[in-house]
Amino acid sequence: MATKKIPRATARRLPIYYRYLTILLNAKKERVSSTELSEAVQVDSATIRRDFSYFGELGKRGYGYDVASLLKFFKGILHQDSLVSVALVGVGSLGSALLNFNFHQDTNLRISAAFDTKPELANKIKSGIPVYPASDIKKQLKEQQIDIVILTVPGEHAQEVADQLVEAGVRGILNFSPVRLSVPKGVQVQNIDLTNELQTLIYFIKNYGPDGSKK
Amino acid sequence: MATKKIPRATARRLPIYYRYLTILLNAKKERVSSTELSEAVQVDSATIRRDFSYFGELGKRGYGYDVASLLKFFKGILHQDSLVSVALVGVGSLGSALLNFNFHQDTNLRISAAFDTKPELANKIKSGIPVYPASDIKKQLKEQQIDIVILTVPGEHAQEVADQLVEAGVRGILNFSPVRLSVPKGVQVQNIDLTNELQTLIYFIKNYGPDGSKK
Repeated sequence: MATKKIPRATARRLPIYYRYLTILLNAKKERVSSTELSEAVQVDSATIRRDFSYFGELGKRGYGYDVASLLKFFKGILHQDSLVSVALVGVGSLGSALLNFNFHQDTNLRISAAFDTKPELANKIKSGIPVYPASDIKKQLKEQQIDIVILTVPGEHAQEVADQLVEAGVRGILNFSPVRLSVPKGVQVQNIDLTNELQTLIYFIKNYGPDGSKK
Repeated sequence: MATKKIPRATARRLPIYYRYLTILLNAKKERVSSTELSEAVQVDSATIRRDFSYFGELGKRGYGYDVASLLKFFKGILHQDSLVSVALVGVGSLGSALLNFNFHQDTNLRISAAFDTKPELANKIKSGIPVYPASDIKKQLKEQQIDIVILTVPGEHAQEVADQLVEAGVRGILNFSPVRLSVPKGVQVQNIDLTNELQTLIYFIKNYGPDGSKK
């Protein structure tokens, strides 16, 4: 087994491959060519081959890929074969929407606990998920053995809450606040900054013509 | 002026630089060293220098960067000096949260119209933003000269709505659906796939030890 760490860009494409293979299997398709795969997921075939090469020989030249076995492989590496429970901290409007948001079908993800500092939110069930007071974070995460947290608190509280999460043994944070969190090595932070995404999009639109040339 | 298209990774960091410079200016700081900048935005200084090099000489060796003039520069390229109106299509739970979501302060972004197919949502004001029936998309976008849309419809309708948006002259789509949209060249799509982000995070946590080594 390769010991090389796969690039983050490759890791981000694995769920995309996984989802498409699930669709193919549900459609009772037995194999898929690299061209079909490339068109469906909108990733060029050289990149797909390079991504797959990190995991050894997954397809056969001239045959393409066997849908069921490739899906089984991705299911394994994405840990889709067992339930993954995550928590959410910060039940504001974005947090509430995420509680209500159904992760895509065919995933094994489940938000199983939420936390908020507001007393009126705590100790209630929201979208089927129990909301605990923020003071219970450490206790609940330990008890429920949750090590992945979706962070939807306001920016000014993000670092302070992140420190608590680290102390509670959390290993992964999906950070929706605009703050760049400082965490010890070994804790992964994935930033989703909605304003940033929109600004990047605007940058491309305003600075490049419809044909892709620089204005 | 360089005609080279800057890499997407660089473009995504521009709003991060911009936001930090705004904080510095508000704190009445006049200059910033590349080391301070690097630590604050958590981007290594070689990457910062490479990013900045796309725009010519922005700092002075041994002096660092002048906060006010660097901020002015980024304000210009990010079009932060004029209001940018965007629309949102799909007022479900995620869409509603985004309507209620305040884009970071110091940005000039504004959602100024929303659309939904549900008759009970249309022709009302939600979080201060008018919600129009989906049949008015083309008319309203033209009238309000909006060419950027946040797409929060269910996956099964995403492509069909994207086709309507393209027809209405939209040039940028921030796509929250898991569907890979097919659009003509010249229309930019930025995908935000929440399930995908979470799965990538889980992949890293489950496959690598706390010290970053492969399990």
